[in-house]
Amino acid sequence: MKFEVTILGSSSSTPIFNRNPSAQLLNINEKFILIDCGEATQNQLLHFGLKANRIDHIFISHLHGDHYLGLVGLLSSLHLNGRTKPMDIFGPPELIEIIDLQFKHSQTNLRYPINFNVTNSTVSEKLFESFDVVVESFPLDHRIPCTGFRFTEKQRLRKMIKEKIDELSIPADQVQKIKKGENFTDKKGKIHLSEDLTTEADHPKSYAYCSDTICSWKYLDYIRNSDTLYHEATFLHDMHARAEETFHTTALQAAEVALKANAGKLIIGHFSARYRELEPLLAEAKTLFPNTFLAIEGLTFEI
Amino acid sequence: MKFEVTILGSSSSTPIFNRNPSAQLLNINEKFILIDCGEATQNQLLHFGLKANRIDHIFISHLHGDHYLGLVGLLSSLHLNGRTKPMDIFGPPELIEIIDLQFKHSQTNLRYPINFNVTNSTVSEKLFESFDVVVESFPLDHRIPCTGFRFTEKQRLRKMIKEKIDELSIPADQVQKIKKGENFTDKKGKIHLSEDLTTEADHPKSYAYCSDTICSWKYLDYIRNSDTLYHEATFLHDMHARAEETFHTTALQAAEVALKANAGKLIIGHFSARYRELEPLLAEAKTLFPNTFLAIEGLTFEI
Repeated sequence: MKFEVTILGSSSSTPIFNRNPSAQLLNINEKFILIDCGEATQNQLLHFGLKANRIDHIFISHLHGDHYLGLVGLLSSLHLNGRTKPMDIFGPPELIEIIDLQFKHSQTNLRYPINFNVTNSTVSEKLFESFDVVVESFPLDHRIPCTGFRFTEKQRLRKMIKEKIDELSIPADQVQKIKKGENFTDKKGKIHLSEDLTTEADHPKSYAYCSDTICSWKYLDYIRNSDTLYHEATFLHDMHARAEETFHTTALQAAEVALKANAGKLIIGHFSARYRELEPLLAEAKTLFPNTFLAIEGLTFEI
Repeated sequence: MKFEVTILGSSSSTPIFNRNPSAQLLNINEKFILIDCGEATQNQLLHFGLKANRIDHIFISHLHGDHYLGLVGLLSSLHLNGRTKPMDIFGPPELIEIIDLQFKHSQTNLRYPINFNVTNSTVSEKLFESFDVVVESFPLDHRIPCTGFRFTEKQRLRKMIKEKIDELSIPADQVQKIKKGENFTDKKGKIHLSEDLTTEADHPKSYAYCSDTICSWKYLDYIRNSDTLYHEATFLHDMHARAEETFHTTALQAAEVALKANAGKLIIGHFSARYRELEPLLAEAKTLFPNTFLAIEGLTFEI
């Protein structure tokens, strides 16, 4: 089972020091989900050799430009490159107005349908469910309506006991079925129970994404026990007054959130343009939560 | 007198092969004008070390995304970086609706005023005049309303005869005045006429910008005798049927336009994503108009 996230943008507000505004690409068993879409996200996808047309779901946290200004360009390029399959977009209600207005004035009739799904920034909701994943939104506390997202794998498959494959000459095409719970009948007609051929599945992993927010414990329940937590950390803690004033979080606060939420791993991002070097932000977060990583463009993290 | 243009984007439709969508920066005596503003134009300005805040005038040819999707991001970054001086924007009437809607939903109150000036895609108009330059628009023929722009220097200064500076011990601070037409009084009180100390000024230069258009002779009068002509050349001429169908121009046609318009120099750009290598487009244009150049990101051309 593949469940990993690639950082496409880690800058707050403006592109700077080769950092692009927020965007992340989630790969769940080779199904691609885009989270936020700052300006030039399509350039980043190109740059890292990631095929934009494999994205079928886009989640936009809020309508500050650094989180969505790349969306119309991306949708437009997919159209020009011949996409026909639908795109599901989840975001604040005004987002579809912004998309529609621009395609209206460019007189573009997209070759593929957009299924737009309105997010609610006041309550947590289940937004989407597929064979692989459940996506929920939850309220964050920013200057304008803003939601976080939590991506949780569906039940993982049980794990095959490798020795059994040789012992019972189990054909390769039977392995997935056995892992899913089917029993196996050997050549002599003897039935072997799935649970005897496999061990417990790993617990389903989850990824929580907290884009712009003031640090608070209000959203703690929604991100609790996430295997990987992405949390904005716009400032160092000596700027905590500025962070509060602008409804942002410091690296130390992001670490405190990760600790309280019992997250497995913390990725910090959305770095202010005032920081050319990011190591001090990492060091600060690690004082409270050692398993912290910097969101660096092009890095891929296993959830 | 400085009058030069730097290419920031040369791609049609989508970013590809490190080519960005349309944008050019005009430098007229250290006053900066932006022509079109495709997605990630602000990244290009950063990349080439050009200060975005020196731009005071922006001209947008039409509302296909590859010509304006970088505008809101650029305006937003200028705001965040503390700009207070006004920005003059010239473009189709619907553009201000697109800008306003996005700043409304991001709840952004810009710290600086935008003076929006509507362009007319059906007649040629004088849009702007300053000490240095006159800017006129003219109709192009594209799938949606589209204007070209012509930037013409105001009268150039007369040229100082260098020997006279030594001969009459003319102080450095007097030279500009003499070039502007003031007479000079030497130490003995003798008056020397400006016209005796200088030679004729060069003729004022002009730059014509023809973004997306089907090749036609309708706009020939507006670009006639331009010292430098930028003309789109989306396709090679073997694709002329496709060019017509999409209201674009081939490299050969762009050269024919330059020839008929008696342009001094031709820059071709807006290259289709089908061309990884651009040399064939250049070679084709040169068969008719040898003084042709490729619009390559980062190149600066003297007008």
